[in-house]
Amino acid sequence: YGKNTIKFLRLHKEGKKHFVKEVEVCAHLRLTSPQEYLEGNNSLVIPTDTIKNIVLVLAKKNGIPSLEQFAIDICNHFMTTFCQVAYVKTYVQEVPWQRLHEDGVPHIHSFICVPDGIRFCEAEQCRNGPLIVFAGIKDLKLMKTTQSGFEGFYKNEHTTLPERHDRILCGELFCKWSYGECKDFDFDCIWKKIRECILEAFAGPPDCGEYSPSYQKTVNCIQMLVLSRVSQVQVIEVVLNNTFYNVVDMKNLGLSNDKEVLVPVEAPYGSCACTLGRK
Amino acid sequence: YGKNTIKFLRLHKEGKKHFVKEVEVCAHLRLTSPQEYLEGNNSLVIPTDTIKNIVLVLAKKNGIPSLEQFAIDICNHFMTTFCQVAYVKTYVQEVPWQRLHEDGVPHIHSFICVPDGIRFCEAEQCRNGPLIVFAGIKDLKLMKTTQSGFEGFYKNEHTTLPERHDRILCGELFCKWSYGECKDFDFDCIWKKIRECILEAFAGPPDCGEYSPSYQKTVNCIQMLVLSRVSQVQVIEVVLNNTFYNVVDMKNLGLSNDKEVLVPVEAPYGSCACTLGRK
Amino acid sequence: YGKNTIKFLRLHKEGKKHFVKEVEVCAHLRLTSPQEYLEGNNSLVIPTDTIKNIVLVLAKKNGIPSLEQFAIDICNHFMTTFCQVAYVKTYVQEVPWQRLHEDGVPHIHSFICVPDGIRFCEAEQCRNGPLIVFAGIKDLKLMKTTQSGFEGFYKNEHTTLPERHDRILCGELFCKWSYGECKDFDFDCIWKKIRECILEAFAGPPDCGEYSPSYQKTVNCIQMLVLSRVSQVQVIEVVLNNTFYNVVDMKNLGLSNDKEVLVPVEAPYGSCACTLGRK
Amino acid sequence: YGKNTIKFLRLHKEGKKHFVKEVEVCAHLRLTSPQEYLEGNNSLVIPTDTIKNIVLVLAKKNGIPSLEQFAIDICNHFMTTFCQVAYVKTYVQEVPWQRLHEDGVPHIHSFICVPDGIRFCEAEQCRNGPLIVFAGIKDLKLMKTTQSGFEGFYKNEHTTLPERHDRILCGELFCKWSYGECKDFDFDCIWKKIRECILEAFAGPPDCGEYSPSYQKTVNCIQMLVLSRVSQVQVIEVVLNNTFYNVVDMKNLGLSNDKEVLVPVEAPYGSCACTLGRK
Repeated sequence: YGKNTIKFLRLHKEGKKHFVKEVEVCAHLRLTSPQEYLEGNNSLVIPTDTIKNIVLVLAKKNGIPSLEQFAIDICNHFMTTFCQVAYVKTYVQEVPWQRLHEDGVPHIHSFICVPDGIRFCEAEQCRNGPLIVFAGIKDLKLMKTTQSGFEGFYKNEHTTLPERHDRILCGELFCKWSYGECKDFDFDCIWKKIRECILEAFAGPPDCGEYSPSYQKTVNCIQMLVLSRVSQVQVIEVVLNNTFYNVVDMKNLGLSNDKEVLVPVEAPYGSCACTLGRK
Repeated sequence: YGKNTIKFLRLHKEGKKHFVKEVEVCAHLRLTSPQEYLEGNNSLVIPTDTIKNIVLVLAKKNGIPSLEQFAIDICNHFMTTFCQVAYVKTYVQEVPWQRLHEDGVPHIHSFICVPDGIRFCEAEQCRNGPLIVFAGIKDLKLMKTTQSGFEGFYKNEHTTLPERHDRILCGELFCKWSYGECKDFDFDCIWKKIRECILEAFAGPPDCGEYSPSYQKTVNCIQMLVLSRVSQVQVIEVVLNNTFYNVVDMKNLGLSNDKEVLVPVEAPYGSCACTLGRK
Repeated sequence: YGKNTIKFLRLHKEGKKHFVKEVEVCAHLRLTSPQEYLEGNNSLVIPTDTIKNIVLVLAKKNGIPSLEQFAIDICNHFMTTFCQVAYVKTYVQEVPWQRLHEDGVPHIHSFICVPDGIRFCEAEQCRNGPLIVFAGIKDLKLMKTTQSGFEGFYKNEHTTLPERHDRILCGELFCKWSYGECKDFDFDCIWKKIRECILEAFAGPPDCGEYSPSYQKTVNCIQMLVLSRVSQVQVIEVVLNNTFYNVVDMKNLGLSNDKEVLVPVEAPYGSCACTLGRK
Repeated sequence: YGKNTIKFLRLHKEGKKHFVKEVEVCAHLRLTSPQEYLEGNNSLVIPTDTIKNIVLVLAKKNGIPSLEQFAIDICNHFMTTFCQVAYVKTYVQEVPWQRLHEDGVPHIHSFICVPDGIRFCEAEQCRNGPLIVFAGIKDLKLMKTTQSGFEGFYKNEHTTLPERHDRILCGELFCKWSYGECKDFDFDCIWKKIRECILEAFAGPPDCGEYSPSYQKTVNCIQMLVLSRVSQVQVIEVVLNNTFYNVVDMKNLGLSNDKEVLVPVEAPYGSCACTLGRK
């Protein structure tokens, strides 16, 4: 198969107000015949340069109504235009430009980059198969400074980790979910709702939080809340890349340290992941 | 000289509410004698490990009231404790954790990382010299999609750039300023005010913006506004790393493109910088 | 499942001569029951910290005879020690330290890091299934400045790429292959032989090279040569991340440019990949 | 001032044999008047795009005889062509392509990237001042597994580091030196000689090494050897970014560990630097 990455910016005006979407598009294609590999016969090969042109032309003609719709448009174009394409997958990722505000007033043409979780989506289709749409968020860094522990784990002669009932839970989240038949979805609205679910399940109620007995359980809580609140989601995958913090032992410096000063532990570096679907 | 980098997290509670600061501290030391270099005599050398301990002990004892105060505390400690230190500089940079909000309600112990410009500061002192404090913001990515051009520049036989009066202005800002004698400054409040000045000077009024004839002039506007609004700032340095966008030529694809689809240009990559002080 | 990354260095002496291996080990585990996710029951969970200890203890006891043998040792340990483990995969990657030479004389205890392709391997096992071993090389950057073209590709109204019969072929290679039943393999020797095959297939004969009609065909040549020369390889996957170079058009600077000055093209960025096995 | 980065590849043939240099050039310019900053008057500004064209034209016309000569050529061009330029600095860095060998036979047109230390240089000139040339090597990672210690350092109540007489010394080297009047220098030859001095001073004799009492002393040894062996070097700066390794304590795992298994310590991360010139 072949893969191409294209970055570009789509600018759009309504009166004097500007709207901007900067995206990175990655298109994977697999052809019906591997003759370009086996025989060096390029007659069915769609050059990277042509794929780039198609993506830019679609952006020019249709705009980017939502990341998901744009990914669907690209898939459809390749499937309907090129009979030699057996499979197409398009990945679209957004540069997180947000409108700038001055004293609460939105600016008509200025933007600031706020990377507090990156939105992405995928559309995928095999010839004669259904078009499947995924969406997700990545690079979302979250921390809770209490209401987290890790106890009752398996122990043997290689165990040196003490049990802890009040540690810091910190990590980088990757979430990706699939939609079922996605007729007339408001993708932007659903995505925002899911992001809120993720934050709520991670943090718990604002006034007291909710105890997490492990990274794994927190992963599951996120999945359960999204599945229960957002009916359009069929399957959800969550990966939590953990950052561990150790309370610094200050005894030989003559000081106590009641979880006040902690250092991030670079290694071992862990992650846990789970994929959960509806029955 | 020697340099050390330490990352840690300082947690602080007021009742059930948690406050978190995660910082990266870098301490530069120069000793009065270079004997450890020339003779391999280590008797005056303060090991990296000791420096780490000192920074953590200070964080434990004093907390991190502000980045600047913490940098000052470290400088003072080294100058008063070690007579072999001829010069000390401490750099402190913040991991941009922000309190999480659910439906507008702040969470008591959960945080999200929002890297829309990283705050840092420096405190620097030579023995018998004044303590100088710098503060700054880096990795601040801004874009304005109109009200920017570049015309009337110098031309010769190597010039191929056309003049443009409506281009995209996009870049990554680095700003660093020095304070004068900093008695009783509210460093957090001043920093926020300066950040607002930077955004305002970059973007112009929310309803119409302000025309920028060059990256250089925008750099100067930022400096002028900060110096005029914030009396504590003595000198301000601004570096703007430019990202250029080219309007895609779609003529041979049979389409016009009225600044709707643009691609970022990786090379040449430019930056402009200027340092401006008060008379 | 869970995943952990550990970095460490294993030092070994024969007389006064030192041998060093620095590796990054990543262990993936899947348990027979997902109860830690669903119920927050940690009783079967093997903490990251324990996994780290096991890896370090195995390195201490057995050393690292080869990356592959070390990966196999870890797999075996987890399968035989923990009945709750349903699946284990270990990935081992080497930091490319090479013995330093002075005027051709090898140094007994000094090393230099030479990252001209990174060696890695994987061992993988499901409970009651066979242990499968993979090996590979990544981040191997190669270039040939002639004997490469791209012609006869598919064309339509979105095609703007000209045909070229003398372009630069440059890319970053990732190769990964699987071994069959690996009794008494000399993994180090086989790996070196495969690396030589890759370079030979990419470059062709030293005095004239061999024409490549596409990145895809070069990928296939590498696979064919490895499979024909190295009987232990069962399946080989090759990914070639292309770097395109454009000849700079210097006409409006009054100069011709006969493929003398070229600039790398950042976007579109492409890659091609293929997996090939024996019949 | 303004700064620009350009990446390109210069290809050159002698008969059927190809020679390739890929470089990154960064040009800093300061103009005689800051009017583009203060007044938005661009009439003296040399656009990034023009600078790019000049660098490419020089590469086409002169080739890249050595990095240093190319940097000198660019400086000279700007000083003689543009009277508004008050200061110019050019930095040139090489992509470390090496000719591929098959069974010891050099390939006529294939290359492999071997980043075991990156070569760079700088040429710098103020109007009416001398042209100064610097050269250097960076990202050179070296390790010695014995003949290194750290003892007799300054101790107080914050000291927790034990004295060690047999530790691992590992780091990333940055070296930069200046040449005096550089008439007819063979820059390639001198650079190779200095690289050999660095390796020799770091490692000591191949059969026994040489004891290093500190990172600082090793820095000084490198400087002393280069200054004594290479008369063209006037001043040499060395920065050594240390990677510390801790012997893993395996007592509570029931094992001794005689410097056999070590883990890299991410923080504190230190570096030491020194600049040394001739009397």
